[in-house]
Amino acid sequence: MVVYHSKINVESKGENDIIDITNKIQESINSSNLTNGICCVFVPGSTGTISTIEYEPGLKEDFPKALDKIAPKNQNYAHHEKWHDDNGRSHVKATLMGPSITIPFEGKKLIHGTWQQIIFIELDTSPRNRNIIVQIIGE
Amino acid sequence: MVVYHSKINVESKGENDIIDITNKIQESINSSNLTNGICCVFVPGSTGTISTIEYEPGLKEDFPKALDKIAPKNQNYAHHEKWHDDNGRSHVKATLMGPSITIPFEGKKLIHGTWQQIIFIELDTSPRNRNIIVQIIGE
Amino acid sequence: MVVYHSKINVESKGENDIIDITNKIQESINSSNLTNGICCVFVPGSTGTISTIEYEPGLKEDFPKALDKIAPKNQNYAHHEKWHDDNGRSHVKATLMGPSITIPFEGKKLIHGTWQQIIFIELDTSPRNRNIIVQIIGE
Repeated sequence: MVVYHSKINVESKGENDIIDITNKIQESINSSNLTNGICCVFVPGSTGTISTIEYEPGLKEDFPKALDKIAPKNQNYAHHEKWHDDNGRSHVKATLMGPSITIPFEGKKLIHGTWQQIIFIELDTSPRNRNIIVQIIGE
Repeated sequence: MVVYHSKINVESKGENDIIDITNKIQESINSSNLTNGICCVFVPGSTGTISTIEYEPGLKEDFPKALDKIAPKNQNYAHHEKWHDDNGRSHVKATLMGPSITIPFEGKKLIHGTWQQIIFIELDTSPRNRNIIVQIIGE
Repeated sequence: MVVYHSKINVESKGENDIIDITNKIQESINSSNLTNGICCVFVPGSTGTISTIEYEPGLKEDFPKALDKIAPKNQNYAHHEKWHDDNGRSHVKATLMGPSITIPFEGKKLIHGTWQQIIFIELDTSPRNRNIIVQIIGE
């Protein structure tokens, strides 16, 4: 049993950019030389999240719109008063969704549905460079 | 330390069917012969989710209603235009909730509250056969 | 590779109390003597959740308000009819957010952003004593 640590660097284009990181996670598993186990995919920072989606243009529009219902743009956030910041909604959405997901792999292959990709969602209000952690545990 | 891979097959009755899989996960732990560790419970596919709930009829009504506020049925989804599909809301809800949870076990027993069961929630618009992955890591 | 089991005891002040448990998780890693791995942070019980946030007073106001949109106080819940209980909304929010997150650590340090703390959120309607599980797997 081994722990294998890797990072995926992504450049987001700003708010609601949804980036498919499935292949990069598979590459991390390949580099680990592990056969069976789990990957913990974690984003450091409090304005991004990890989930899965059928990665097609329609849902890349639909999902951010739905999330806006919980934390709309045109609303006051107490967070703004402290930092004169504009991203209260980004923080709220990230806390709701959480910073990580854990995914099994078997026979050196990441397990996921054919129309299910692993994604990073940029929730912050401006483009960001992100180092997503892929911590792999297996044998 | 060992990785133990197993599957739970469920037949969902369609949208908002909530299925208690706690006992099946415990059976996977029993079969693994492991004493302490964690279980990653993951649903392949982008229209289902895993969480926990007090498994009683009231909440099985309340929870889907709450989730409908974020992704209601009577609304246009860009996803439908692509595939002439009807399940845009199912995808949105699944991405919001995520495909997996990770649960510790200790002394061969899955850890959870007395009134807290592990559940699969069918978010798709028709009945589905699902193979839920239970990846167990422990010693 | 070792599994290290620990608990964090917290006394919540009631609904929407958000408690920073980052240092306690780091202390669990220290006690484990493990260098690299993952922590599964899990709350037994169906009316609390674990996530991350920039821990500052503004967001501690903003986040509960946003969550109330999905499961408001002034609404009927079928859950109340069964138990003559008042916490239907607490259950709905907890199922939406999930009971656990998994966080990597490397070089004996929990990985998280500078302004990203690990939190327990009390969603129940009265103060509760909670034993949060920190299951650490690593080497």
